[in-house]
Amino acid sequence: MPMQLTILKIGGNVLDQPAALHDALDYFAALPGAAVLVHGGGKKASQVLRELGHEPVMIDGRRITDAATLEIVTMVYAGLLNKDLVAQLQRRGCNAIGLSGADGNSVLATKRPVKTIDYGFAGDVQAVNAVLLAGLLDLGLRPVLCPITHDQRGQLLNTNADTIAKATATALATHGYQVSLRYCFELPGVLRDLHDPASVIPELNPSLYADALADGSIGGGMIPKLDNAFAAVAAGVSEVIIGDLAAHRAGRGTRCRADG
Amino acid sequence: MPMQLTILKIGGNVLDQPAALHDALDYFAALPGAAVLVHGGGKKASQVLRELGHEPVMIDGRRITDAATLEIVTMVYAGLLNKDLVAQLQRRGCNAIGLSGADGNSVLATKRPVKTIDYGFAGDVQAVNAVLLAGLLDLGLRPVLCPITHDQRGQLLNTNADTIAKATATALATHGYQVSLRYCFELPGVLRDLHDPASVIPELNPSLYADALADGSIGGGMIPKLDNAFAAVAAGVSEVIIGDLAAHRAGRGTRCRADG
Repeated sequence: MPMQLTILKIGGNVLDQPAALHDALDYFAALPGAAVLVHGGGKKASQVLRELGHEPVMIDGRRITDAATLEIVTMVYAGLLNKDLVAQLQRRGCNAIGLSGADGNSVLATKRPVKTIDYGFAGDVQAVNAVLLAGLLDLGLRPVLCPITHDQRGQLLNTNADTIAKATATALATHGYQVSLRYCFELPGVLRDLHDPASVIPELNPSLYADALADGSIGGGMIPKLDNAFAAVAAGVSEVIIGDLAAHRAGRGTRCRADG
Repeated sequence: MPMQLTILKIGGNVLDQPAALHDALDYFAALPGAAVLVHGGGKKASQVLRELGHEPVMIDGRRITDAATLEIVTMVYAGLLNKDLVAQLQRRGCNAIGLSGADGNSVLATKRPVKTIDYGFAGDVQAVNAVLLAGLLDLGLRPVLCPITHDQRGQLLNTNADTIAKATATALATHGYQVSLRYCFELPGVLRDLHDPASVIPELNPSLYADALADGSIGGGMIPKLDNAFAAVAAGVSEVIIGDLAAHRAGRGTRCRADG
C-alpha cells in the first residue's frame, strides 16, 4: 500500500491571525501519517519593507522583488515566519523541519523571464526534490516549506506558495505517495454563489468541473485555483481539498478528484 | 572504522568579508567525508537593528536579546545569512541544509537564568540531536547550523555559535563519529606572542596546556577558547583545530588533542 501523505498549504489569511494560526498548527500537528506544511508570506514582509523605507510594489497581486525586497522576504519568510512555525510545531510534539528551496535543493526554480513585467527575483518552480523530502519523511520529520527557492547558481528567489504546494504534491505522488493536497484559504470551499457560504460544491471531478465552467456556475476568481488543482489531480495527486480551516477540520470543503 | 566528520565554525570575521566568506565556503564544500558548518552572526544583525530603530546592546561582548532583537536576529541569522550560505554551497555542488535549533529539534536550549545580568532571550545549549544530524548526514546532506535555538516550548533563543559547534562535536563524537572540530577565527592559531603571528603553537594536549597555563605563555583571551576545546577533547572529540582560514587550508593552526 502506498504511504499516505497530507500536504497543507496556509497563506496570509491564516499567518496574519494568531488565533487562526494556532488552530491551523493544532490541525497540522494532529494529522495522521506523513505530512508537509507549505506556507506563504502574509503582511509581515510588507510591514518590514516599509519600516526599512521600501514601499512594497505589487502588480496583479504579485510582489515585484528587487534586490532589497528579496533580502527582506528572505529574512521574513525563511527566518522569522518559518522558524516561528517550526518552533510552535515542536512545542506541539510535531517534529517539524523548516526548509527554503535551497535547503537540500528541495525546490529548484528559475528566475521568471521578463515579458511585459519584470518581476525581479521571482522564481518559477522547476523541480521539487522528492528524494530529499521522502528521506526527511522517513526520518519522521515534517518538512515546513517557505516561499523562498533557489536556482542552484547561488540566487535565492521569491516564489508563489500555492505553486510550491502543487509541485510538491505532484513530485511526491510521482514518487509513490498517496497525496492529499489541502489548500486552506478564506472561504469554506468553492461556492456556487459567492454570497452564500452554504453553497459549497462538495465534490468536483474533471467532468463536473467542465460542466460547471460551461454553465458559468463557478466564479472567475476560483478558476486559476481549480485549474491548478485539476492539473495536480491529472499528475497523480489523489485529491485536492479547498476550504477554510473549519472545513478542513470537519472533513468538508470542495474535494477535487479524478473521474470515476 | 568510525565515520570521519569535520565541523567547521565560522564567525563574524569571515561572514562580514565577502572574499573571506567565498574562500571559507570553497574550503567547506571541498572537505572530504561528512561535514557540518556552524555560523555566527556578524555585523548584519546590528545594522538591521539600527535601521529598524533599535540600538544594539552588548555586555562583555554578548548581545542583550529583548523581544524586538530576537525577532531581528532570527530574521538575519536563520533567514538571510543561513539561506544565503546554503544557496552559495548548493552552487558549489555541496548539498547543504540550513537548520536553526528548532528544525528537527536539532539544538535544544534553555533561556539563560537571570543572575546579575538579564541577557533576555539568550539560550544555553542543553542538547544537540545527534540522531537527527546523523540521519541528515546519512542522506548525504551537510547541515548548516545558525545561532538560533529553541526551548521546545515554542520559544526561539539567541545562542553562541562557538558553544553550538562544541556541543555538536561532542554529541556526534558520542554518537560514534571521529570528529575534527575546526574553529576559524582571525589569528593563524594560538600564539605564544600575540604580536608575532609566527609564534603559533602547533600542538597542544592537556599536559602541555596545563604547563602553558602555569608558565603564563598563553594569552588570557585564548583561555576560554582553549578551555572549551579541551572540554570537547575530554568528551571524545578527536581534535580541535584553531586558526584562520589560511591555516585550516594549509593543515596548520593549533591542534588540540588528548594526551598520549
